[in-house]
Amino acid sequence: MRRIITLLTDFGLSDYFVAEMKGVILSINPAVKIVDISHNIEKFSIVQASFVLVCAYKWFPKGTIHVVVVDPGVGTKRRPIIVETENYYFVGPDNGVLWASAMKDGIKNIYEIDIRKFEKVSLTFHGRDLFAPVAAYISLGEPLTSLGRKINELVTLDIFKVSVSESVIEGFVVHIDSFGNIITGIENKHLKEIGIDYGDSIEVSIGNLDIKTKLLPAYGHVKPGELLALINSEGFLEIAANLSSAAHKLRTKVGDRIVVRKK
Amino acid sequence: MRRIITLLTDFGLSDYFVAEMKGVILSINPAVKIVDISHNIEKFSIVQASFVLVCAYKWFPKGTIHVVVVDPGVGTKRRPIIVETENYYFVGPDNGVLWASAMKDGIKNIYEIDIRKFEKVSLTFHGRDLFAPVAAYISLGEPLTSLGRKINELVTLDIFKVSVSESVIEGFVVHIDSFGNIITGIENKHLKEIGIDYGDSIEVSIGNLDIKTKLLPAYGHVKPGELLALINSEGFLEIAANLSSAAHKLRTKVGDRIVVRKK
Amino acid sequence: MRRIITLLTDFGLSDYFVAEMKGVILSINPAVKIVDISHNIEKFSIVQASFVLVCAYKWFPKGTIHVVVVDPGVGTKRRPIIVETENYYFVGPDNGVLWASAMKDGIKNIYEIDIRKFEKVSLTFHGRDLFAPVAAYISLGEPLTSLGRKINELVTLDIFKVSVSESVIEGFVVHIDSFGNIITGIENKHLKEIGIDYGDSIEVSIGNLDIKTKLLPAYGHVKPGELLALINSEGFLEIAANLSSAAHKLRTKVGDRIVVRKK
Repeated sequence: MRRIITLLTDFGLSDYFVAEMKGVILSINPAVKIVDISHNIEKFSIVQASFVLVCAYKWFPKGTIHVVVVDPGVGTKRRPIIVETENYYFVGPDNGVLWASAMKDGIKNIYEIDIRKFEKVSLTFHGRDLFAPVAAYISLGEPLTSLGRKINELVTLDIFKVSVSESVIEGFVVHIDSFGNIITGIENKHLKEIGIDYGDSIEVSIGNLDIKTKLLPAYGHVKPGELLALINSEGFLEIAANLSSAAHKLRTKVGDRIVVRKK
Repeated sequence: MRRIITLLTDFGLSDYFVAEMKGVILSINPAVKIVDISHNIEKFSIVQASFVLVCAYKWFPKGTIHVVVVDPGVGTKRRPIIVETENYYFVGPDNGVLWASAMKDGIKNIYEIDIRKFEKVSLTFHGRDLFAPVAAYISLGEPLTSLGRKINELVTLDIFKVSVSESVIEGFVVHIDSFGNIITGIENKHLKEIGIDYGDSIEVSIGNLDIKTKLLPAYGHVKPGELLALINSEGFLEIAANLSSAAHKLRTKVGDRIVVRKK
Repeated sequence: MRRIITLLTDFGLSDYFVAEMKGVILSINPAVKIVDISHNIEKFSIVQASFVLVCAYKWFPKGTIHVVVVDPGVGTKRRPIIVETENYYFVGPDNGVLWASAMKDGIKNIYEIDIRKFEKVSLTFHGRDLFAPVAAYISLGEPLTSLGRKINELVTLDIFKVSVSESVIEGFVVHIDSFGNIITGIENKHLKEIGIDYGDSIEVSIGNLDIKTKLLPAYGHVKPGELLALINSEGFLEIAANLSSAAHKLRTKVGDRIVVRKK
């Protein structure tokens, strides 16, 4: 069976961590394809990993196994889990990082991985000793019931927290991408609820700043350096600056509150 | 058919952009091999991407599909194109980034991609919604005429701009590599035209500095920290410092003018 | 034959170096799997590359070909070599970088690569022109005797240098990982020799600082920010701080002397 395993971690690319996970996977299933989602998640940022996963997971073929290792609680009592959803498998620590993606895709079953079934599991590197082999065995078609026992719930983490009243949307900055684009948890459907469409002028309060801008289709619709709002390719409201960093201009950071009004 | 798709972008490795392109490609052709050329091109630097592509493209097997997404004009009227050359396919925006490589390999046909043939193309991420599927369909053997219509020209971008007079070569710094080596657009053939060979002393004006150095075969031929000139592994004149950063020493940046004389 | 080639270099990910090596390998053996160990080794740091290789090599399937290009002496008289060990092949410059891993796995044969058997070998990029094709030919089953001639020894580099007396272990910091964990060359077996076990209090002198801490099983056993000692997933003594950078706190760097006593 041709399968893909993706990896999303905060391990960086300078150490041997990612390579060891790949070595373990390929030792169990030499035919599997491994794709990196990112290894540059901010250390221990379950929120950032959760957001990157929500964006990326759905672009992979049905049956892909997504492994996430942002795991500040490794070696303590947090549970290692597998979530089987409508189209995918998610493998990682039960610290909330898998929740948003699993919910969106539709949860079918949750399993707590039985650590006793794996040899020589270190207390500091479950990515290599537990999650990598689990993913590899799933890719070989191993039944999930042989890897752990069914449980009924997983830790939840709502990174979006959007509220809409009659004419105001409140949300939060969930990601700053490497271009400096400010990505919020506000989705296109929220904008539609209060009647905002392309071409409309809007007021945006972000951190301590109030800005007036327009909802436009693409970066090139304003002059270089100028701010704009757009629905990005993931369906989220993004505050950007053409050919420039909006986050730098507005001194915005992940977690900042954002309020949007039609003008 | 076993094919390779390479990716060259300015997306960085912290976000979900590259992973989503790979997910899309593997959803269309699960058997294709994807190789990253680099995702750390300076944001929007068509010049740097053009240079890195010129160096890298020719080392891949015949039939490789090179996808370049450094695309400041995404969502505006710049054309998305496919260039079929003697040995390769190049896919990307028609902003000049493909020109130097396509010219070197020998252009056979140019196609403007028909965006209406692709579903749900966002206005900000043609890398995922247009160029990735186009590359995947080419890798499956889809005829290029079904992906777009033939056009006659593409945007040109001569990043090298070298001129040779009787005893002087003028050119520009086209790249600073991660070792701090200063790579110019001057090729070995230009040095030969004015009679410069290994072991010769040369005068180099670079930015505001005049230096005297020698053309030598390898870094280890001078003491640590000392400057030298060499023909690098790509055939370009490089100003380097053994075990050290010449760019830092000489405060050189991409675009600086360089003049070379035999001494 | 399904084979894996791993790459470990100090080339970074901004240039075309790594991509060209991959292009060359895939031109010779399109079916081989290439896995990056890391390309972010500190420039010219044979010690760091040696340590990362010692950790990573053994997690890959038997028969894997490990290529290391941290090569300050490229183009001078240092020898290009292949080391055949009990389970692997190691390919790279004979500057000590391969020694520790080759010794641990058990050396069977050493070959000096015959550079004359390869076409157009540049003097500055043996990674692409020599080591990449050598690895690709090994992956195709080419006999090693056709790639070079047997030699009897290779350059040694003991990065660990641990000494144990009755109640004191002396060693060195061999790596700072991207979490800021301080990794020493001291192994679990050394701690056992002087009777240190989990839960024991220990005194650690590191650089100019004397600290009292405990040997604990995992990061989460102390409060955020607090120091601890642990045996990491590679079997080495690590000084860490829960959810924080121990190296930053203690101003430690690679090469610092470390002394451990039971308390």
